[in-house]
Amino acid sequence: MTSSPSDSVTPDHIAAAVVALRESSPLVQCLTNAVVTQVTADVLLAVGAAPAMVDNPHEAADFAAVAGAVLVNVGTPTTEMAHAMRLATAAARENGTPWVLDPVAVGALRFRTELAHDLLSNGPHAVRGNASEVLALAGSGAGGRGVDSTDSVDAALEAAVALSRRAGTVVAVSGARDLVVNAGNRRAVWVEGGHPLMQLVIGTGCSLGAVVAAYLAVVPDPMVATVAAHAHLSAAGSVAAETTSAPGSFAVAWKDALHTLSPEEIAGTVSLAVLSLTEEAR
Amino acid sequence: MTSSPSDSVTPDHIAAAVVALRESSPLVQCLTNAVVTQVTADVLLAVGAAPAMVDNPHEAADFAAVAGAVLVNVGTPTTEMAHAMRLATAAARENGTPWVLDPVAVGALRFRTELAHDLLSNGPHAVRGNASEVLALAGSGAGGRGVDSTDSVDAALEAAVALSRRAGTVVAVSGARDLVVNAGNRRAVWVEGGHPLMQLVIGTGCSLGAVVAAYLAVVPDPMVATVAAHAHLSAAGSVAAETTSAPGSFAVAWKDALHTLSPEEIAGTVSLAVLSLTEEAR
Amino acid sequence: MTSSPSDSVTPDHIAAAVVALRESSPLVQCLTNAVVTQVTADVLLAVGAAPAMVDNPHEAADFAAVAGAVLVNVGTPTTEMAHAMRLATAAARENGTPWVLDPVAVGALRFRTELAHDLLSNGPHAVRGNASEVLALAGSGAGGRGVDSTDSVDAALEAAVALSRRAGTVVAVSGARDLVVNAGNRRAVWVEGGHPLMQLVIGTGCSLGAVVAAYLAVVPDPMVATVAAHAHLSAAGSVAAETTSAPGSFAVAWKDALHTLSPEEIAGTVSLAVLSLTEEAR
Repeated sequence: MTSSPSDSVTPDHIAAAVVALRESSPLVQCLTNAVVTQVTADVLLAVGAAPAMVDNPHEAADFAAVAGAVLVNVGTPTTEMAHAMRLATAAARENGTPWVLDPVAVGALRFRTELAHDLLSNGPHAVRGNASEVLALAGSGAGGRGVDSTDSVDAALEAAVALSRRAGTVVAVSGARDLVVNAGNRRAVWVEGGHPLMQLVIGTGCSLGAVVAAYLAVVPDPMVATVAAHAHLSAAGSVAAETTSAPGSFAVAWKDALHTLSPEEIAGTVSLAVLSLTEEAR
Repeated sequence: MTSSPSDSVTPDHIAAAVVALRESSPLVQCLTNAVVTQVTADVLLAVGAAPAMVDNPHEAADFAAVAGAVLVNVGTPTTEMAHAMRLATAAARENGTPWVLDPVAVGALRFRTELAHDLLSNGPHAVRGNASEVLALAGSGAGGRGVDSTDSVDAALEAAVALSRRAGTVVAVSGARDLVVNAGNRRAVWVEGGHPLMQLVIGTGCSLGAVVAAYLAVVPDPMVATVAAHAHLSAAGSVAAETTSAPGSFAVAWKDALHTLSPEEIAGTVSLAVLSLTEEAR
Repeated sequence: MTSSPSDSVTPDHIAAAVVALRESSPLVQCLTNAVVTQVTADVLLAVGAAPAMVDNPHEAADFAAVAGAVLVNVGTPTTEMAHAMRLATAAARENGTPWVLDPVAVGALRFRTELAHDLLSNGPHAVRGNASEVLALAGSGAGGRGVDSTDSVDAALEAAVALSRRAGTVVAVSGARDLVVNAGNRRAVWVEGGHPLMQLVIGTGCSLGAVVAAYLAVVPDPMVATVAAHAHLSAAGSVAAETTSAPGSFAVAWKDALHTLSPEEIAGTVSLAVLSLTEEAR
């Protein structure tokens, strides 16, 4: 692997993506877990998108045909919600609506693992998870401890590349630093930023999946969109952590920063490392 | 339309309603969408009511018979929840329990549109929605963009009057300024207050529906109750916006103000314009 | 009843329990009501545990076999969730996983009352509720007003003892001061602390049930575990109330204090009164 300045995701790309998101206010349909619906909606509003949790099987497909993007998060899959997820992702594929798969706790639990594999065949534009989830979805891990990763992001690089190539999707792995991989154009980006306090607020990871969807709705390059989403949430985390070291007030400051940070501040707060994937790593 | 001082909703009415709510602490049953359950319960507690989310078909009817009021919000209608809504509103009608219909995204999506029309036949005391939702429920619009209104409140006046007359209910239309219509006594009230930041906090509109129900439980005149609910939440929004311009801390300050504002402060913060509806407008 | 210093739960026990919780970060499976999922997860993270809301019937039993502890809260029981609760508690019993029953609004509503009685036969390590709920579950009350208790904690002492003896479980009754009873070793502990503002934040009671489960996962004595959970949340409430008198900012300060208070501060903020239960009371 060597650095490839010619095919980079740059701070300028990120700042432009933030501007585009705030100008367009895309409608993001969320079929997500019951724990994070409120924080996900608040985060989407704070970053400049419009949330719509149309997650029942009677309406999910019709809405996926007109939404700007769709998030599917398998964190608390009821029978009916799982059915809606199959319908929504099929409709997204048919209508060219970009969609994101968040494989929460996949690998550790059979029902959602089968569900996530089925959904994967409907061609998500991006998959976002922790290292254990990505390893499991790629077929090379046993899954983590419930929603917690027991694997490091670095250990998931190879699996992320394999999954990205096989499913033709961008794959993002969240952790102490985040990894975004697109095997299609042989690029990988490390996004460094954020703060450990984000782990103490429920929904920071799940809402990241929704924000990836929001950026996919307005940014043509899925790699840039995915990196911009990670940069946006991480930058807000870094800034929020300057004001508090306790989780209640951190959650408030983080939502504030999502809204108030300028595009340049977001782009300038995180550090990016772009790699080109060698034939071997691919 | 001309102003009608003789049949007004006055600041004194509002202050008295706030006192009544805080003294009675009515039990408000909520069958609401999965995104806003927590914020709705927190708002009900902050204004002085007691939330009870009894929303399953095994219990919803029994509880509607004894609750102070019922909110039905069709934002995320599972099959089972839709069934519970039919049972709860039928029981509310039979037992004289006041109830509120919040037709979230009605018009844009068929399943919930049919559901809302069916529920309407159980005689809500108030309907609360945005302009697009009210237009759709009145039969004169195609619905908005998901949960967002694509129509202005002013444009919904005629539809609100028609819906109010046809369904025999108070109709409230939320927007930059709010409109409350009661065709029965030919009155309409504009409530001016609040702050655009409320649009960036999920659940400010949905919890307004719940607070309308809370006031209906303790105030005999449904028009006064509905206006008081709008005044209460708007006043808190105005006050909260004086302390912050970011959505995370605004949400906190707004919930604080719901609890700490005095009846007179609530009544004095919003401005009311009472109109009498001419025969033509009716 | 006389005080029994020889068989006490002491501040030292509590401080040691807090240390154990923060060191172990146990995985707590929650099958809880739809209103409090987010705040419950945030509270578990703040106290040092790891939440996992695996609450569907396809996965709940498998997960209960490996979780550190399980919370079952019957606040909004859908048909599918009720099924999952039966499976999860049966698996917990078979695998020796400690679990907590929170009988929200039991007594007032038939479906959940039958459900709670059935679940009780799977041997919870602790039951946590308000006075009306405990009276109803013990068979000596008619239930409260929805989720609100209409009975005092003092009035529930006898019922708590009877329920504890019959079900072989610790019974905790929440109120202005909290009561924890273990008929097995003839002890009762009054925990005094907290603040009335906790009643104005949804989920302070429900998340207490989850935190009891978290402590049960790491503390061998269920009486000490249950008292430590009450002390932890009450101490944070006392501290938070020193900074604010409004519910929005109180909720934030409370979550902060859950994380930042030292074990000694938690143990030193509440006052404990340990009683031994006479034959008569038993």
